[in-house]
Amino acid sequence: MSWLDEVRWSPDGLVAAIAQDARSGKVLTLAWMNRDALARTVETGEAHYWSRSRARLWRKGETSGHVQRVREVRLDCDNDAILLVVEQTGGIACHTGRERCFFQRLEGDRWVSVEPVVKDPRTIYGHD
Amino acid sequence: MSWLDEVRWSPDGLVAAIAQDARSGKVLTLAWMNRDALARTVETGEAHYWSRSRARLWRKGETSGHVQRVREVRLDCDNDAILLVVEQTGGIACHTGRERCFFQRLEGDRWVSVEPVVKDPRTIYGHD
Repeated sequence: MSWLDEVRWSPDGLVAAIAQDARSGKVLTLAWMNRDALARTVETGEAHYWSRSRARLWRKGETSGHVQRVREVRLDCDNDAILLVVEQTGGIACHTGRERCFFQRLEGDRWVSVEPVVKDPRTIYGHD
Repeated sequence: MSWLDEVRWSPDGLVAAIAQDARSGKVLTLAWMNRDALARTVETGEAHYWSRSRARLWRKGETSGHVQRVREVRLDCDNDAILLVVEQTGGIACHTGRERCFFQRLEGDRWVSVEPVVKDPRTIYGHD
């Protein structure tokens, strides 16, 4: 029995995967993995995810260069959630050009963006 | 429009919610919330989740006493994942009696439990 079989994949074959920055401890992203994404993450040492919107495997940073080098892979008590401890290349995990995706904080009854854009996403992705 | 309407609920009305310890920065749990769970979390300042297996709302710590006091609620860039920064009562977030649920680490091709049981779950839940 493979370690991959011990993961409790959802009916659509996915598992939620949190990425946490190894240095700062900040929670960077929540994304999804299928079996192939998890296998490649471990083989290559770089985070791979399954894009539900584009329905394809995706190597984090393949366009932006903001690769996540994986230091540690963890599984929770129910075997249905993954935690990656990563080194975030470029210090930017979010496609908005911010350090991380969790930049909206609830203040009273409003979500407020509380973290700055580090780099203009048009520069990151080469659009103009 | 309510702040609750800005969350991108899944077709079954759920959103993934990560809890992170405010002091240690450790990622404790990944659980699910429906609209009611998120509303009550914010109203009461204590984490509430939706149990998918039991199909009911659940106040974290209602049986164990291991309540999560919520310091901060965050939403990610896609509006489909929540991050709670919490004070974990009793220092135990996992039903196995461990500090947190992510206690299995991949070592080679095996998941290895690398964190100790702090308190026997039979003591926590009053079984014998």
